[in-house]
Amino acid sequence: MILVMDSRSSDTDLNTISEKLKNLGFELEVSKGKEKIIVGIIGDTRKLLNFPFHSYPGVIDVLKVLKPYKLASREFKELPTVIKIGDASIGGKEIALMAGPCSVEDEEQIYEASQGLSKLGIKILRGGAFKPRSSPYSFQGLGERGLKMMSEAAKKFGLLVITEVMSIEQIDIIAPFADILQVGARNMQNFMLLKELGKIKKPVMLKRGLSSTVEELLLSAEYIMSGGNKKVILCERGIRTFESYTRNTLDLSVVPAIKTLSHLPIIVDPSHSTGRKELVCPMSKAAIAAGADGLIIEVHPNPKMALCDGAQSLDLNDFGNLIKETELVAKAVGRSLNNIQVTV
Amino acid sequence: MILVMDSRSSDTDLNTISEKLKNLGFELEVSKGKEKIIVGIIGDTRKLLNFPFHSYPGVIDVLKVLKPYKLASREFKELPTVIKIGDASIGGKEIALMAGPCSVEDEEQIYEASQGLSKLGIKILRGGAFKPRSSPYSFQGLGERGLKMMSEAAKKFGLLVITEVMSIEQIDIIAPFADILQVGARNMQNFMLLKELGKIKKPVMLKRGLSSTVEELLLSAEYIMSGGNKKVILCERGIRTFESYTRNTLDLSVVPAIKTLSHLPIIVDPSHSTGRKELVCPMSKAAIAAGADGLIIEVHPNPKMALCDGAQSLDLNDFGNLIKETELVAKAVGRSLNNIQVTV
Amino acid sequence: MILVMDSRSSDTDLNTISEKLKNLGFELEVSKGKEKIIVGIIGDTRKLLNFPFHSYPGVIDVLKVLKPYKLASREFKELPTVIKIGDASIGGKEIALMAGPCSVEDEEQIYEASQGLSKLGIKILRGGAFKPRSSPYSFQGLGERGLKMMSEAAKKFGLLVITEVMSIEQIDIIAPFADILQVGARNMQNFMLLKELGKIKKPVMLKRGLSSTVEELLLSAEYIMSGGNKKVILCERGIRTFESYTRNTLDLSVVPAIKTLSHLPIIVDPSHSTGRKELVCPMSKAAIAAGADGLIIEVHPNPKMALCDGAQSLDLNDFGNLIKETELVAKAVGRSLNNIQVTV
Amino acid sequence: MILVMDSRSSDTDLNTISEKLKNLGFELEVSKGKEKIIVGIIGDTRKLLNFPFHSYPGVIDVLKVLKPYKLASREFKELPTVIKIGDASIGGKEIALMAGPCSVEDEEQIYEASQGLSKLGIKILRGGAFKPRSSPYSFQGLGERGLKMMSEAAKKFGLLVITEVMSIEQIDIIAPFADILQVGARNMQNFMLLKELGKIKKPVMLKRGLSSTVEELLLSAEYIMSGGNKKVILCERGIRTFESYTRNTLDLSVVPAIKTLSHLPIIVDPSHSTGRKELVCPMSKAAIAAGADGLIIEVHPNPKMALCDGAQSLDLNDFGNLIKETELVAKAVGRSLNNIQVTV
Repeated sequence: MILVMDSRSSDTDLNTISEKLKNLGFELEVSKGKEKIIVGIIGDTRKLLNFPFHSYPGVIDVLKVLKPYKLASREFKELPTVIKIGDASIGGKEIALMAGPCSVEDEEQIYEASQGLSKLGIKILRGGAFKPRSSPYSFQGLGERGLKMMSEAAKKFGLLVITEVMSIEQIDIIAPFADILQVGARNMQNFMLLKELGKIKKPVMLKRGLSSTVEELLLSAEYIMSGGNKKVILCERGIRTFESYTRNTLDLSVVPAIKTLSHLPIIVDPSHSTGRKELVCPMSKAAIAAGADGLIIEVHPNPKMALCDGAQSLDLNDFGNLIKETELVAKAVGRSLNNIQVTV
Repeated sequence: MILVMDSRSSDTDLNTISEKLKNLGFELEVSKGKEKIIVGIIGDTRKLLNFPFHSYPGVIDVLKVLKPYKLASREFKELPTVIKIGDASIGGKEIALMAGPCSVEDEEQIYEASQGLSKLGIKILRGGAFKPRSSPYSFQGLGERGLKMMSEAAKKFGLLVITEVMSIEQIDIIAPFADILQVGARNMQNFMLLKELGKIKKPVMLKRGLSSTVEELLLSAEYIMSGGNKKVILCERGIRTFESYTRNTLDLSVVPAIKTLSHLPIIVDPSHSTGRKELVCPMSKAAIAAGADGLIIEVHPNPKMALCDGAQSLDLNDFGNLIKETELVAKAVGRSLNNIQVTV
Repeated sequence: MILVMDSRSSDTDLNTISEKLKNLGFELEVSKGKEKIIVGIIGDTRKLLNFPFHSYPGVIDVLKVLKPYKLASREFKELPTVIKIGDASIGGKEIALMAGPCSVEDEEQIYEASQGLSKLGIKILRGGAFKPRSSPYSFQGLGERGLKMMSEAAKKFGLLVITEVMSIEQIDIIAPFADILQVGARNMQNFMLLKELGKIKKPVMLKRGLSSTVEELLLSAEYIMSGGNKKVILCERGIRTFESYTRNTLDLSVVPAIKTLSHLPIIVDPSHSTGRKELVCPMSKAAIAAGADGLIIEVHPNPKMALCDGAQSLDLNDFGNLIKETELVAKAVGRSLNNIQVTV
Repeated sequence: MILVMDSRSSDTDLNTISEKLKNLGFELEVSKGKEKIIVGIIGDTRKLLNFPFHSYPGVIDVLKVLKPYKLASREFKELPTVIKIGDASIGGKEIALMAGPCSVEDEEQIYEASQGLSKLGIKILRGGAFKPRSSPYSFQGLGERGLKMMSEAAKKFGLLVITEVMSIEQIDIIAPFADILQVGARNMQNFMLLKELGKIKKPVMLKRGLSSTVEELLLSAEYIMSGGNKKVILCERGIRTFESYTRNTLDLSVVPAIKTLSHLPIIVDPSHSTGRKELVCPMSKAAIAAGADGLIIEVHPNPKMALCDGAQSLDLNDFGNLIKETELVAKAVGRSLNNIQVTV
């Protein structure tokens, strides 16, 4: 951390803040220029994130050098993290495909989805049982009943399950039925929930908040990791901007950015980000070309009958085509799709 | 709700969707034009928020007419809601001032703050015991211990208490010590928490999310209100934009907009939104001039020693000046400050 | 400017960049820490804005300290700039009101507007002759013919004229008819136009771009000022954000921010920013309370017949009320409206 | 266009607005419901873009159905536009690569760049002679002298030239030296410039503004096309959002969106959008996978010595690698790079 002070500051001003910082255990390197005094602060300056520098007279600016996260950083762990779940793995050479309906609606729907996805070689089933909805009047999901339906269908077809957890109390209810717990965009900074998820052993997929920076995403990962759970999967699902043609703006540059800053795997959600089914396939290919470790896609056996997000759901046939096209791009960037052996 | 279909659609296309909508209990008014067929859908179309219109052939567009919230709307309740708490009231002619430190740090600090604020005529003390922080390494608040300190100091000086609740489990811990429960910006769409807050009797102040629209803010209020708790206070605290000079962009137009759309009171937070202490006083005056029902302001007896948000905290002296200046603006718009009898 | 290098950098790395910077005339102050080497660069570092620091090995970060603008800064000129035009003045204790229709439509309309505004005590007439429109199919203004109409009407009622200039060629056409030339939001970074406006003697009102930062606004002012024309008036007219309830998001915090950073006057446009007539009056009052030096407001003698922006135009009666309410707020913050002697 | 009126409106209200619209030549289809009266307006409603509907009593809402642009729309022209320039073509099966330095700096630099790019099989040289810079103190380009240097170097190596035009007067200066004229992001809504570019015969590449929607981009294309010049190439170069890790947020979803809405070719600029050289290659691959018709990339023979944008410029070696990797992705999506026969 670098402290910039006015060179016209009195010695008292400089001493006051210097003493305070030294008492907190930091070493200082002072360099007096004509216009500015520059003070290098040495030590774990993450502890100074909230130090009220600007309340001290003479202080002009404070410049951060160290990244505020640690366990999630590439400096801390050079090699990419590969998370193994059953016979799937996320973060390695193989690209993970997660697919399924926005929400579990009934036994038939989730059975049909699981069967279709399984035929397409998919290993991870997504589906919502507890749904976060902007309006209290929207369908809120089937809850525990939905969880059981999904779990049974998944078992029947040998699929792993990823589903969203919205509150601390739900962790114990959901964990027995899920292989990966998802934290939704609206809960990315629900820190109490993140802390609890740091105590479990199952992998957590953390979706980027609609207006969260890359740094905040990694800090939220750090909440989970510093609690003891290192199996964090990041997910880019679009940010909120002025553009309204798409539901959100898919920020794909984040994919190679995360690869530079962190060792954690990153998944892309082209369904929620674009909100338009005709954009899902091209953006899936783009995500893979950018270096994503996987995709999470809304697939419904009958989108016309979907109780939510029908506008962005693919049917099984379109999804089959997406897999074929995406596989070609995966090969072009030296990767392959996760255990996919298309049997259709 | 208005459905727009291509005039070249077949009768079958029109019939398919018409039957479906009639079965759901809606009446239809069809008007066939040269280029478009326009179908007016009559009934409580809030139920159709997630209907997969776009999966039906021939559908070009769907246009919402009704607002998606009800209990929070001005149409539902013409007169402004006035929330009475002790001898303070929020939403009436008097403007409510809430002030206090970002977080409770120790007994001395909260005592000193309470004493100073009480002398300035303030009726509502704000202070954080459980703090949501982007980084797990930042000071997280004193928790229950902090709550007790704040509650005792408040009682001693006859102040009401507003403090943040971050999770469902905290409701029972916090409620006995607080007169108003605050939902922070990061939790505005923590729907599980909102639902629980709908079951309690205490007023809830709901802060707008960093990237939430006015409509979403009112929908989140609707979550609380539809649970049974009508005492909701809205709070504008800045949205996230590209501008980085200020911490966030204070969206003051929301104040008169809310007055048009809703009967709920709205408070403005000039401290967190601007993040700069020199902007707090002018933006407080602007908020009042725009029609805000109150202000929530960070005041610390010694900002230099603050454990968080020192850069935006006022000391008691500056806050005294703010009150004087704000009072003049309040009078100019036909209002007065809440029970303030400045004794300094 | 402060250069941060990795402490593991070789002496060659440090020497390479040091030599380069010394050759460019800068003095360096090097301070070697355990993790970082910090190099203070002393001199007019505005010249280094585009220096490719990151291409040099060992460089971790470069931190700006100096502001990139000079003539527009408060450091350069302590006292606020007051621009006198006829018997009006902008930037002093008196608040300037500019009002008039979005565009000049015909002689009757501009005559009627001028007459009405003059009766209300307004000194500065706004009106568009050349209109920037998103669509080529929208009404583009009457051009030179409109200019003449406006100029004649203004003269008849003793009003000054402000109108928009959209290109270099228009400067000579417009200047004879206008007392203030306006640069629209879309042209805030039309640098060729700004340079030419630096050569004229008339005041220029520079509107903030829809996605321009405060720093960029001041840099654009610097373009005009560095060309020789010091009479620059800034104008906040809303920025583009995700919120769609209002046409744009009026960023009022910019008003006190500009007062801190610059000596230039700042005007607020509550009409274009909100896009809703019912928000114009409350936001006018808020702007004045925040410290704005004036307002520019769309007023049409018959908004129902307006060829553009009817939704946000006030009629003369509503505008009369706005003046009365705004005057009270102006007094509350120790200012008065510009030469207004309401005669209605 | 659909007009929504309150069903409690008087017949007079309905008649007043109906008469007005009929007089303007529109046909109306009125459908009276219990809560709303819905009026379908038939005709070229693009003319009503600025009609002051909301000034008429009883009007609740106005809903657009038609797109506001025409010549640029896919409905108007089904087949994709392919623009042929020399032996290059943009918009067909082959992907166009444009590369070169941010600005022409001296003869040696542009000669070296042209030679290197030519060896890599590049057909289109980019380079700035007139540079738009946020600060008046930044290097503004060599102007006409730079144009000549670039033109000579290009001729020597058989390259086509694309360069930016910033004002109407520059058109005549630049056109003789350029094969494609570029309109920069800051000038996307410089409508006077767009109109003039509608009168020339050379292709124009129109960059999306930093805060412009897809619809506005297409409307700006419409300005050029409605003037007579149909050779418009669109370019996505990043939008401004809250995320500051990248210089801008590259909005790749726009690529398939444009393919749905328009027949015009679309190019992606991964250099200016990301502002970080390590992100240029992955985002180039992603752009191609998303369906882009080409790339425009900053390449400098010696980025360390670049007078602008050094942080995002690739050297020739890195660019050679980018070409190889991108070619694989191009093949995976059934396309090839433009006339590239890599000879290195």
